[in-house]
Amino acid sequence: MLGHGSGGRLTTELVQRTFLPAFRNDVLSALEDQATLSLSGLLDGSGQRLAFTTDSYVVRPLFFPGGDIGSLSIHGTVNDLAVGGALPLFLSAAFILEEGLPMKDLERIVASMRAACDESGVMLVTGDTKVVDRGKGDQVFITTSGIGLVPAGRQLSIHSARSGDRVLVSGTIGDHGIAIMSVREGIEFETALESDSTSLVSLTQLILTSCPTVRCMRDPTRGGLSSAVNELAAASQVGVKLMESAIPLRQEVRAACEMLGLDPLYVANEGKLIAVVPAADAARLLEVMREHPLGRNAAIVGDVVAEHPGLVTMKLPLGGERIINLLAGEQLPRIC
Amino acid sequence: MLGHGSGGRLTTELVQRTFLPAFRNDVLSALEDQATLSLSGLLDGSGQRLAFTTDSYVVRPLFFPGGDIGSLSIHGTVNDLAVGGALPLFLSAAFILEEGLPMKDLERIVASMRAACDESGVMLVTGDTKVVDRGKGDQVFITTSGIGLVPAGRQLSIHSARSGDRVLVSGTIGDHGIAIMSVREGIEFETALESDSTSLVSLTQLILTSCPTVRCMRDPTRGGLSSAVNELAAASQVGVKLMESAIPLRQEVRAACEMLGLDPLYVANEGKLIAVVPAADAARLLEVMREHPLGRNAAIVGDVVAEHPGLVTMKLPLGGERIINLLAGEQLPRIC
Repeated sequence: MLGHGSGGRLTTELVQRTFLPAFRNDVLSALEDQATLSLSGLLDGSGQRLAFTTDSYVVRPLFFPGGDIGSLSIHGTVNDLAVGGALPLFLSAAFILEEGLPMKDLERIVASMRAACDESGVMLVTGDTKVVDRGKGDQVFITTSGIGLVPAGRQLSIHSARSGDRVLVSGTIGDHGIAIMSVREGIEFETALESDSTSLVSLTQLILTSCPTVRCMRDPTRGGLSSAVNELAAASQVGVKLMESAIPLRQEVRAACEMLGLDPLYVANEGKLIAVVPAADAARLLEVMREHPLGRNAAIVGDVVAEHPGLVTMKLPLGGERIINLLAGEQLPRIC
Repeated sequence: MLGHGSGGRLTTELVQRTFLPAFRNDVLSALEDQATLSLSGLLDGSGQRLAFTTDSYVVRPLFFPGGDIGSLSIHGTVNDLAVGGALPLFLSAAFILEEGLPMKDLERIVASMRAACDESGVMLVTGDTKVVDRGKGDQVFITTSGIGLVPAGRQLSIHSARSGDRVLVSGTIGDHGIAIMSVREGIEFETALESDSTSLVSLTQLILTSCPTVRCMRDPTRGGLSSAVNELAAASQVGVKLMESAIPLRQEVRAACEMLGLDPLYVANEGKLIAVVPAADAARLLEVMREHPLGRNAAIVGDVVAEHPGLVTMKLPLGGERIINLLAGEQLPRIC
């Protein structure tokens, strides 16, 4: 049980016994107050840029089918770098632990972070731990930040979508959110429904290499596909027309959404991306995505249009069209 | 009052109304999932290294004499970069907000962060916000991460202290911890005692320019002077002999420590640094520090020795010596 505190020997022991063995590398082991990272061999001196991102993870429960807060905290931050066109390199992790947390839970989370770092090809190089009194936190919150490098000339941006582009999604939507909700609500499925939490690094690298005309990628996490496409429409001042019948959706997710009164368009994903590409390259991008294990269910799901800039609409299977708004409130709190 | 949630319009409004106006800059305003930072004009292609650090801030109360959680979250992370010899450049901020937090408190914190960024010469370029249900957090937790550049050839490290070096501290110790404790315990002083929370960037830059032989700097935050010096002794496998009579200490801090049963050596600082320097340069470094407004009370407080490697001792004013251990438990929880 965790009663470890500020400065001093108990924190040192937590670092020495739990964190260092899990993440062992020379930078972290130096235990300076800051990681110092050589860029030699990484920088080519020709206009590369740094990518930098941060996210806090407050998901509950801590452990869920297909992942836990540890793996999620690595995948989520790595993916934010990857969809921006960066190669993720270095991560930091800051833990806010509630007094009374079982040490075995922390160890399991840290082991899962380590595995996710390895899978994503990143190194965790610096960290911090704070402990708060019981009732002032919720077991574990993790904030990870990530640094990556964007090659010279690569300029992906949600401001770049143009009328005539097509919108693709790399696979089925809503799996993460429904996996979490099924645990919280005690729903059982005939087949296990797992979170899609995973690293998108290899998929994004394949896309960027094989289809360099891609304008923008985005991982539709909190707020789901709907939020990601709405942000794109607003930033690029274009309209987007989605086709409901084209959006990949697992049968179990559809059923759970009906049971829980949720719209899968708003449910979080943690291992999917949307990509916007000029129409001429859309079929090729689809083919490229489908070659990758994480893109087997990829689909072209919509078109970027000049009409209704800033607005997302969806063609319904039986005809007609509806507006897909940004969600006003919280559909699913603490989903990531 | 905060009821803002996951994805969707309310988070967008929080970002648009509160965060963007406070930190407005082109990188943040792009609202991509990651900040993309040009290094041109910053990199000279000759062996510079990146410095990277992270810290979570869980201090309570949120507002205290001399600062608040917002300014502290900038100063603390900037200082971790600065004492490592880096010039701090870019910061991220991730907020974990408890439902029910008054918006005016958040706005005050964010304004304070912005002022601290300006004072420190850094740009906040990316961020995240999560909201947790009431009773699962404690108003506001902030995690900041920072990136800086270390010039080629500069190699400060807590592993570099050698027998014969001297240890300096830049000013009075314990001010931050006692300012916080005086609020928590309702202690009044004749003169206001304030936290020393401030940016150490200009002091560290002056030291590095004027006294490049400095081996190592460290900011003695959680765990105080004692922890910082113990970590140094352990990492460099040297002994350190401190002289109690030489350590700068405000009269009010001394009195409050006696009243509260605290040892000022273990009380947190947020605007002080220790520096280790070859003995031949110690007088010069002291002079340099004292020229700076943040170093007016600087002092030479100890010697690095070959005896008792890994151990810190202190000469007492009346003769005799005691061992200064790492603290085993928590002296002051949630001090930063």
